[in-house]
Amino acid sequence: MSSTVAVLSPSDLLAHWQGHRRLTRRVIEAFPEESLHSFSVGGMRPFAALAGEMLAIAVPMLREIVSGEAATYNEAVPASKAELLAAWDAATSELDAWFAKVPSDKFGETLTVFGQFTGPVWSHLAYAIDNEIHHRAQGYVYLRALGIEPPAFWQRD
Amino acid sequence: MSSTVAVLSPSDLLAHWQGHRRLTRRVIEAFPEESLHSFSVGGMRPFAALAGEMLAIAVPMLREIVSGEAATYNEAVPASKAELLAAWDAATSELDAWFAKVPSDKFGETLTVFGQFTGPVWSHLAYAIDNEIHHRAQGYVYLRALGIEPPAFWQRD
Repeated sequence: MSSTVAVLSPSDLLAHWQGHRRLTRRVIEAFPEESLHSFSVGGMRPFAALAGEMLAIAVPMLREIVSGEAATYNEAVPASKAELLAAWDAATSELDAWFAKVPSDKFGETLTVFGQFTGPVWSHLAYAIDNEIHHRAQGYVYLRALGIEPPAFWQRD
Repeated sequence: MSSTVAVLSPSDLLAHWQGHRRLTRRVIEAFPEESLHSFSVGGMRPFAALAGEMLAIAVPMLREIVSGEAATYNEAVPASKAELLAAWDAATSELDAWFAKVPSDKFGETLTVFGQFTGPVWSHLAYAIDNEIHHRAQGYVYLRALGIEPPAFWQRD
């Protein structure tokens, strides 16, 4: 990795991620309470479980990147929509706080996270974002199948 | 944007994108011919149309970024799986060629693409990748609903 060419800055990356997370929050909100934990298509997990996976990755991974303390993957599915939204909002603040502690020369460093995934720090962050987009998009299909118009993909504010 | 801190290099970004595009190619391949153009869930577009959208964005947008010539959004859905895969492979080569021509100081420059979307160059590239992940994930749900195991999300080689 060249340190003299910047595609985007760390603060650009955080803003991009939090923009995606605001959209994911709107997708959670769009689900009727009873469908969030039960509805799915093709035998997949309901959206609450997919959101639980996002929560199990984001803060624990970033905390491991900053602190060096091994993260464990611990997926927990909040029992209600209100609890899921509260966990989401708590993670939003924690991500901001941990991200601010990532040293500027850390992004190209190769690390292993969750005891098994090895790659440069930027690739771990990209994976977390990409995985969120991937599972959120499955939530879009669930919403469409429920007859609900999902939030606009391009809106991130 | 700071030019002294690099989250990832331009070549990292291209490799990341092409890794996603290899996965998307496998998703196209996983569809039975008859389902690619007809099957969908919740009234959404079939996967061939979603892949057509990806093709309509990637090369035209990158060409506009490099050449400065206005791109038009022109979605065309290849008529068969073989034609779609051929168009995909042609775009893979074209993306490599155009990406190599992006000046290293271009990523933070603010541009308007497709005559209406204004933002830094990196955000346009991120949008193209994110939109591909988003629609590909909808293809994952279609495959599951068809009883077909989709390719592994984490595999990008």
